[in-house]
Amino acid sequence: MKKIQLDQTREFSPIAIKNFVLHDSAYFKIINFNIGAGQLFPVHSHDIEGQLSMIVIEGEGEFLGDDSSIPAKTGDMLVCDISVPHGVKARTDMRIIVTIAPPI
Amino acid sequence: MKKIQLDQTREFSPIAIKNFVLHDSAYFKIINFNIGAGQLFPVHSHDIEGQLSMIVIEGEGEFLGDDSSIPAKTGDMLVCDISVPHGVKARTDMRIIVTIAPPI
Repeated sequence: MKKIQLDQTREFSPIAIKNFVLHDSAYFKIINFNIGAGQLFPVHSHDIEGQLSMIVIEGEGEFLGDDSSIPAKTGDMLVCDISVPHGVKARTDMRIIVTIAPPI
Repeated sequence: MKKIQLDQTREFSPIAIKNFVLHDSAYFKIINFNIGAGQLFPVHSHDIEGQLSMIVIEGEGEFLGDDSSIPAKTGDMLVCDISVPHGVKARTDMRIIVTIAPPI
C-alpha cells in the first residue's frame, strides 16, 4: 500500500513540461504531467494495445486529437486507446494524471 | 476518445455510497465513488492479480488497511494490490476515482 501526495509534485517549468512517474508496475503506469500555461503536450500515439486515462486535477486547456480539440478543465477526464492520437494544450497552468494500462 | 465530466456525477446519498462506473474495458475499469461524510467504504480485498489506484478529488478522510489508517485528502492517491485489504472512511463528503487493472 503506497500513498502518493500530489501536492508534492506541483512543479512547473517555463522551459518544458514537468513529469513525475508516480507508479510503474506490471499492471499500469501512472504519471503526473504539469503543463505550464501556454505549453503544448504534442499530439502523439503509439501503435500498441492498451488504453490511457487522463484526469485534469488543476487548471484548464484542451484535450487534443488529430484534428480535434475538446475543452478540458479540472474534473474532466479523457479515456482513449494508446493508438489514437492524443495531446493536451494548457491555457492556464494545468496538472494531469495519466494512467496507462498495460504500462508502456 | 471519450470525455468524462466528473462534475456530472457529484451525487451523495445519506443512505449509501454512490458509485458510477465511468469506464470499463479489457484494460482497466474506472469508478467514481462518492462517500458521504461519516460513511465507510469497508475494508475488503479480492484474491486476484492486479492493482488499483485511488485518487481523492474532493474532501478528506482516511485510507484504511487491515489494522492501519492513513490520512487522505484531496490530491492524495493510494496504490495497492487488489489482494491487499483496503477501504476508505470519509470525514467530509469525499469523492474518489478508483482505477482497477486488469478490470474485475
